[in-house]
Amino acid sequence: MTHAPSLTPQTRQLTISEVRLTPILVADPPLLNTQGVHQPYTPRLIIEVVTAGGVTGVGETYGDTKYLELARPFADMLAGRRVTDLNGLFALADEVAVNASRVENSVDVGGLRGVQTADKLRLSVLSGFEVACLDAWGKAVGLPVHALLGGKVRDRVEYSAYLFYRWAGHPQGAGGEADDWGAALDPAGVVAQAERFADTFGFASFKLKGGVFPPDQEIAAIRALAERFPGRPLRLDPNGAWSVPTSLYVARELHDVLEYLEDPTSGTGRMAEVAAKAGVPLATNMCVTTFGEIREAFTQDAVQVVLSDHHYWGGLRSTRELAAICRAFGVGLSMHSNTHLGISLAAMTHVAATVPNLDYACDSHYPWQAEDVVAERLSFRDGCLDVTDAPGLGVELDQGRLAALHRRWLEDDGAMRDRDDAAAMRVADADWALPSFPRW
Amino acid sequence: MTHAPSLTPQTRQLTISEVRLTPILVADPPLLNTQGVHQPYTPRLIIEVVTAGGVTGVGETYGDTKYLELARPFADMLAGRRVTDLNGLFALADEVAVNASRVENSVDVGGLRGVQTADKLRLSVLSGFEVACLDAWGKAVGLPVHALLGGKVRDRVEYSAYLFYRWAGHPQGAGGEADDWGAALDPAGVVAQAERFADTFGFASFKLKGGVFPPDQEIAAIRALAERFPGRPLRLDPNGAWSVPTSLYVARELHDVLEYLEDPTSGTGRMAEVAAKAGVPLATNMCVTTFGEIREAFTQDAVQVVLSDHHYWGGLRSTRELAAICRAFGVGLSMHSNTHLGISLAAMTHVAATVPNLDYACDSHYPWQAEDVVAERLSFRDGCLDVTDAPGLGVELDQGRLAALHRRWLEDDGAMRDRDDAAAMRVADADWALPSFPRW
Repeated sequence: MTHAPSLTPQTRQLTISEVRLTPILVADPPLLNTQGVHQPYTPRLIIEVVTAGGVTGVGETYGDTKYLELARPFADMLAGRRVTDLNGLFALADEVAVNASRVENSVDVGGLRGVQTADKLRLSVLSGFEVACLDAWGKAVGLPVHALLGGKVRDRVEYSAYLFYRWAGHPQGAGGEADDWGAALDPAGVVAQAERFADTFGFASFKLKGGVFPPDQEIAAIRALAERFPGRPLRLDPNGAWSVPTSLYVARELHDVLEYLEDPTSGTGRMAEVAAKAGVPLATNMCVTTFGEIREAFTQDAVQVVLSDHHYWGGLRSTRELAAICRAFGVGLSMHSNTHLGISLAAMTHVAATVPNLDYACDSHYPWQAEDVVAERLSFRDGCLDVTDAPGLGVELDQGRLAALHRRWLEDDGAMRDRDDAAAMRVADADWALPSFPRW
Repeated sequence: MTHAPSLTPQTRQLTISEVRLTPILVADPPLLNTQGVHQPYTPRLIIEVVTAGGVTGVGETYGDTKYLELARPFADMLAGRRVTDLNGLFALADEVAVNASRVENSVDVGGLRGVQTADKLRLSVLSGFEVACLDAWGKAVGLPVHALLGGKVRDRVEYSAYLFYRWAGHPQGAGGEADDWGAALDPAGVVAQAERFADTFGFASFKLKGGVFPPDQEIAAIRALAERFPGRPLRLDPNGAWSVPTSLYVARELHDVLEYLEDPTSGTGRMAEVAAKAGVPLATNMCVTTFGEIREAFTQDAVQVVLSDHHYWGGLRSTRELAAICRAFGVGLSMHSNTHLGISLAAMTHVAATVPNLDYACDSHYPWQAEDVVAERLSFRDGCLDVTDAPGLGVELDQGRLAALHRRWLEDDGAMRDRDDAAAMRVADADWALPSFPRW
């Protein structure tokens, strides 16, 4: 790729002169999952791409040490390149050496997103830069990010309430910020949480993060939701914690009320076994999380819904490619979320607005995050976000908030810089170990 | 989709104020295929999209009557929309009523591109508008079309020599323009044609349009090419004219010299039968020509290479989606061509420059077209086209040439306005009928 040595005013606007990386720690409530509990603080990385014309684009991705180690050399290679050169980011990512020793070929503790590979890690880092480049490009030319993706096909994007079993607060001695949500550890607690989500944000569909309690307790929680909100789409996601027979048992018990069952079991082969008999669509953000995993899963009909996630699929444009593949194969498309802030929520909304076959309401942890780095928080209305036509992502970075959350990261002794839900659980239960599969 | 009632200077540049459609007839040599011979003149449609800011973008697609009938209402609906609103073109295409009675569910006489469907027809029309919008957008913001597709990943795009059996001239009484290529009706003629292609344009790979003579004669032609150009990639494309046994016979005879065998037989099922035993990759632009045909073909492993064509896949962005699907399924990607001019060649080159897995040199009929509507013809060098960084497509419409070719269309009595290779053949051979399948 050759770049002209002298810049016109137009290309100045689009040429990267500086990249700033700011790791932060954001408060996270004690949300439970099959591997443990969310830490009091979760690491995120905020990326600012500044052009020679003075435009700044922002992006957000995972902030654990292993992501930072890739993001730094990636950032160093961006200066002098154009923000429009998005296909080139993939070759750049290949050039960035992966510290392979840190990438364990095992279930990722923090992400619950299937097997962790060097490729996935690299694409998660790339996505933060891709979003920042799109934001800068959009701001430079006065176009929203959705226009740079071919334009919105809807004016609002629907989100789903993301319900969690949770404690009222983090264990004593763990630190963290307080909130007024209270505990949710049984069907009544889950229903109360859902009611608050429905009242506050207008969400019309509900997903419960499962794999926390024995299946019958979680079945009871879903049944309670179905009684309280008859006819509403419901989802249950135990993060692959169940055996094939247990998965089929739960599917039988809940087939009449589930919109889809998400990752009941681990691995494409077992998912295919369940799918063949479940009578309810299976969704995944664990056995199909990269393009390389699609062929096997789709030819085996192992999944009926793929949960996209621009972070680990390699950006907004890759998310659109995933959508095209799903369209061609008649596989449904929904959207996954992990702990994230307003930048990523804006990015999720822009890409979701452009995808005709986003068949389901998107997941988002956003209501659980009281802290943010954007000047104005995004607001759900009737369970939806309006798609902004403002330039770029349409969000503004609050440098004061960013600095405060970065200070927290700087002052951390290292305990929170890498998300580890099992370690967080051990603060409450010293004997806790990562459950072996299948947990039930 | 809502559009702001008042336009800023920036949105003026991108808002469509006028669309001009100009059907033309371009000279075409007497190239032979299994259905007949190219007419002396082929219809094409030139599309100009003019923005309120005075920028004009150009596109090109098929110009037969049935395409024009869709293009006119499509054009009428574009005024007031943004050239960036490319995803919206698909909903627009759905709104345009298809005159279903004109769309026969049979092999398309002119295109040799598989079963003709209303969907394919609509996407072929859409693609001309998509390219024109991208050209206008690029010109308005000073970016090449490849940048609007995420940026080039290569600086040159390789093309293949497209060899045809042909007569020296059109039959007496048929009209048409003369050229100095002479006849090519046997191995020696094919080799002489290939030598001229190699000398003039530097092409390093060769494709022979087959299905014209009995298979042994075409095998002999490929053998002669292999002897004259040892080690060079060779392709043979009989447009589905052969039975499964004949296809396997040819594959056996030529497996050591063919880069791929294109559409030896008709239909995904038969292609899968051949693919299982051929020992040479099968390519197609007939059994996989829409997204809806991918699933069956890929799960049956019926094809190893898909020939993209932005015209009938629905534009440059859809072509990139096809490429993403091929990447995910480990299927190769090449590029198909039909009779086309410089606008389409520029569009093909821009999209090819952005696709990392364009594994094969692209097809192009361009060297056979002596007439054009662009001010400066595109020039192959070492078999490649340089990827331009000029705004938009980087081509300029020559209004004088456009008017002259349009005049030819106006003055035509209707005989040439719809491409019909069988009808053209009947001028020379009154008994000629469309061959029934399999021809051999």
